[in-house]
Amino acid sequence: MASDRLSITFAALADPTRRAILARLSHGEASVTELAKPFDLSLPGISKHLKVLQRAGLITRSRNAQWRPCRLEAAPLREASDWVADYRRFWDESFQRLDDVLQDLIKKEKADEHEGKHHAKD
Amino acid sequence: MASDRLSITFAALADPTRRAILARLSHGEASVTELAKPFDLSLPGISKHLKVLQRAGLITRSRNAQWRPCRLEAAPLREASDWVADYRRFWDESFQRLDDVLQDLIKKEKADEHEGKHHAKD
Repeated sequence: MASDRLSITFAALADPTRRAILARLSHGEASVTELAKPFDLSLPGISKHLKVLQRAGLITRSRNAQWRPCRLEAAPLREASDWVADYRRFWDESFQRLDDVLQDLIKKEKADEHEGKHHAKD
Repeated sequence: MASDRLSITFAALADPTRRAILARLSHGEASVTELAKPFDLSLPGISKHLKVLQRAGLITRSRNAQWRPCRLEAAPLREASDWVADYRRFWDESFQRLDDVLQDLIKKEKADEHEGKHHAKD
C-alpha cells in the first residue's frame, strides 16, 4: 500500500461507509456511537473506518469532551481536488466531442426530414 | 474491497505509479513499453497497474493497432471531482479561519509596535 499523503487520502475515500461518515460529519461533529447508528456495523467495525480516516487527516477526534466527538477536516480533500482538477480539460473535451456528435446527428436528422418532405412533394 | 464505481476510482488513484501513468497519458496515447520506461518496473508489474486503471475505466486500450496503445479516459475523474467538490465550502471555511487568525496576529503586532514606540518616547 502506498504511503504518500495523496495515496492515503484516495485510499481512505475508496469506501462507501467512510464517504458516508464524512458526509455525516459535514453536518457537524458526532460521537462514534452516533456515527455507527445508520450503518449495520459494530463499534469495532466503525472504529476501524475512523482510524483510516484519522490516519488520512480527514477527521480529528476531540480530546476535551468525554464523548470525544469526531470532526471533519477538509485540507486533504483540497489536495485531492487539486490533483483531479488538473484533468478537467479532458472531461470538458470528452463532453465537447459528445456534444459535437449530437449536433451532427441533429443536423443529419433535420436534413433527412427536409429530404423526406421533398420526396413527399414528388 | 468496495466495488461501487466511485470506490473503484478512488482505489485506482491511491497509488503514485498509477497517478504518474495517468499524468503521462494526459500528454497522449502510449504503449505499455513506453509507460514502463520511466518506472523501475517489469512489464508484468506495469500491466498489473494498467489492469487496475482499466477496471476503473480510467484508461482504455486500443484493439486496432498492434501495439495496443493506452488512452486516458476522464469520465471517472469527473465523478471523483464532483464528489470532492461537495466539501469545498469546508476547506474554504478552514482557510477563512486561518486568514482571520493571521489578520488578528498582524493587528496585534501593529498594536504592540505602536505601544513599543510610545514606551520608547517615555
